[in-house]
Amino acid sequence: MTARFELLATAGPARAGRLSLPHGVVETPAFMPVGTHGAVRGLHPDEVRRTGAQIILGNTYHLHLRPGEDTVAALGGIHRFMHWERPILTDSGGFQVFSLEGLRTISEEGVTFTSHVDGGLRNITPEKATEIQWTLGSDIAMQFDHVVPGAAPYELAEEGMERSLRWLERCARRHEELQTIRPSDHQTVQSLWPIVQGGTHSDLRRRSLDGILARGDWSGVAIGGLSVGEPKPVMHRVLEELEPHMPAGAPRYLMGVGFPADLLEGIARGVDLFDCVAATRNGRHGTAWLPGGRMNVRKASNRLSDAPLDPECDCETCTTFSRGYLRHLFVVEEILGLRLVSLHNIRFLVRLGEEARRRILDGTFESWQREWLARHYHGETA
Amino acid sequence: MTARFELLATAGPARAGRLSLPHGVVETPAFMPVGTHGAVRGLHPDEVRRTGAQIILGNTYHLHLRPGEDTVAALGGIHRFMHWERPILTDSGGFQVFSLEGLRTISEEGVTFTSHVDGGLRNITPEKATEIQWTLGSDIAMQFDHVVPGAAPYELAEEGMERSLRWLERCARRHEELQTIRPSDHQTVQSLWPIVQGGTHSDLRRRSLDGILARGDWSGVAIGGLSVGEPKPVMHRVLEELEPHMPAGAPRYLMGVGFPADLLEGIARGVDLFDCVAATRNGRHGTAWLPGGRMNVRKASNRLSDAPLDPECDCETCTTFSRGYLRHLFVVEEILGLRLVSLHNIRFLVRLGEEARRRILDGTFESWQREWLARHYHGETA
Repeated sequence: MTARFELLATAGPARAGRLSLPHGVVETPAFMPVGTHGAVRGLHPDEVRRTGAQIILGNTYHLHLRPGEDTVAALGGIHRFMHWERPILTDSGGFQVFSLEGLRTISEEGVTFTSHVDGGLRNITPEKATEIQWTLGSDIAMQFDHVVPGAAPYELAEEGMERSLRWLERCARRHEELQTIRPSDHQTVQSLWPIVQGGTHSDLRRRSLDGILARGDWSGVAIGGLSVGEPKPVMHRVLEELEPHMPAGAPRYLMGVGFPADLLEGIARGVDLFDCVAATRNGRHGTAWLPGGRMNVRKASNRLSDAPLDPECDCETCTTFSRGYLRHLFVVEEILGLRLVSLHNIRFLVRLGEEARRRILDGTFESWQREWLARHYHGETA
Repeated sequence: MTARFELLATAGPARAGRLSLPHGVVETPAFMPVGTHGAVRGLHPDEVRRTGAQIILGNTYHLHLRPGEDTVAALGGIHRFMHWERPILTDSGGFQVFSLEGLRTISEEGVTFTSHVDGGLRNITPEKATEIQWTLGSDIAMQFDHVVPGAAPYELAEEGMERSLRWLERCARRHEELQTIRPSDHQTVQSLWPIVQGGTHSDLRRRSLDGILARGDWSGVAIGGLSVGEPKPVMHRVLEELEPHMPAGAPRYLMGVGFPADLLEGIARGVDLFDCVAATRNGRHGTAWLPGGRMNVRKASNRLSDAPLDPECDCETCTTFSRGYLRHLFVVEEILGLRLVSLHNIRFLVRLGEEARRRILDGTFESWQREWLARHYHGETA
């Protein structure tokens, strides 16, 4: 079994589904916490599991550099290595290497870049990215794509989009070969997903999607190159324009998104999967997400507060510790603090996915979603 | 109920006992993890609980400065504040303020010092130290003592020892008053324990102990001013000379000790309780304690090792993660690593106490202890 998706209900473009993968089931819509270095930053995999997260993302770029995919394979593959036996999706490293502005050279063959770890020169091609992910042993591998900046002009966006289509073919060819020549114990049957590119240009996005669908029958389709600096309404427009043409029977994954409101705006536009480091990055810096907008845990008014961080939350942080204690932990720089707020933020996004799903299934999604966003935006701008 | 101690068995000077406190029972000998800022560094209280620790230590000096004892009291007292409902012992802050060399002035009244947090001038007296601990609400409060350096000459050690006796009287007086005038919900009946001082000088140590015993009937007696730079054989001699004169019916607490071998050497000399930051400090820096001596988790030979850190250990780290994964976490500076090794080190000391206790109870302590120490010292010097 590679990946099987059942669409259970819809509410306008919003969808509730079930994605079955070699390591388990993901009920969608769903947020995927990011485990950059083979760990969701600051957290124990058991804690991540208890947030209700059903799938996490691993970063191919980082794991390739340290500890290296062969080390991960020698230690039993990515799931066993990091003690996460549920599904794992790996990105292709494309986003990271294209972000190394000034430290990388792009050609049709691939990308040559300078490692941020040891300054050594490295090379990633579509074939190599596919091999690394195969060796890691994730449930879902992403194609290696040519990522362009959010505000990329038409010609550059077109070049990246066209190249991404050619690279998709190379990834798919290598992926197919690997299935037969290099099976091993921890390597379950892996899915390869394509990535829609094209910047903010409607016709390029459409050509990208059409090109992808013409090149195969994919068990999932990702949308890349968004939430990289363009205004939110532009991201929403791109999603809205793509939505009617995306295959209904495959999950849609909006890469690198997002913040709480982004998640719900994406779900309302037909997205099923999300990933973003903001939950843990904000948590590390003491910013907690609440239904009524974010809160700096350090704020003075928390000093004597016996209230939970988020009275509406069921996470282990909110049901156990007071705001006063959490504030204290950040003031004295005790790392338990960043861990507890990261955990809350992840549960916040996982729970948002869970509730959206419930609302889609019971037919109350649209009004709930409008009210939730109104309250949240009101708090964020207050 | 304040503190009740039952002596269950002995093996030479070594003792197995049971200390009953308002928040629960402590089976001795036992190691107390240190929760400097209201948290055992890097760990969640649930994790500390699962190491088997039955009591932890809180630092009065640090909690007084941040968040302040009144804040802790307003948030329900130290146990509720930090979500640790088992017993807590607080030190008096004496060790910390006397360590502020050049930043403090000692007088008979108390110590004036410069806060390391805000540079403000602060004052701690025996009465004040007692009040702070009372307000925090620990199960056991320590007397405020005059701590001298490990290599202190006779006159200085004598001065500190004599002053500590006078300060003990003032602590006890204030402690008695507080029991009647400032009870509150979270303040259980607290015990006050004296501290034997006198440096490395046998007659001073003896005079200190006699002076303490002449001044009251204590539910526990601490030995301070050791493991502060003097050679290990000197510490052992001081313990051996004191042991026959310590009251058999009260637990003996060796402050600030120790490393694994120190724990066992202390148990063999009649000590019941220990505390030390070394378990978490070493853990944070990637040093794991093993029966055969310490190990730097980062060492290259761990890279491909699927073995547990310590094959003889039952802690959550050793039963879950490989050496290869732990090494990787330290290499990429992922904080899960320091947490997992800190947790192992704490479990290592807790388990050492548990096994010593079992051996004392079943009559095999002496030979086991000799073999354990021989193996450990051999590994440490290898």
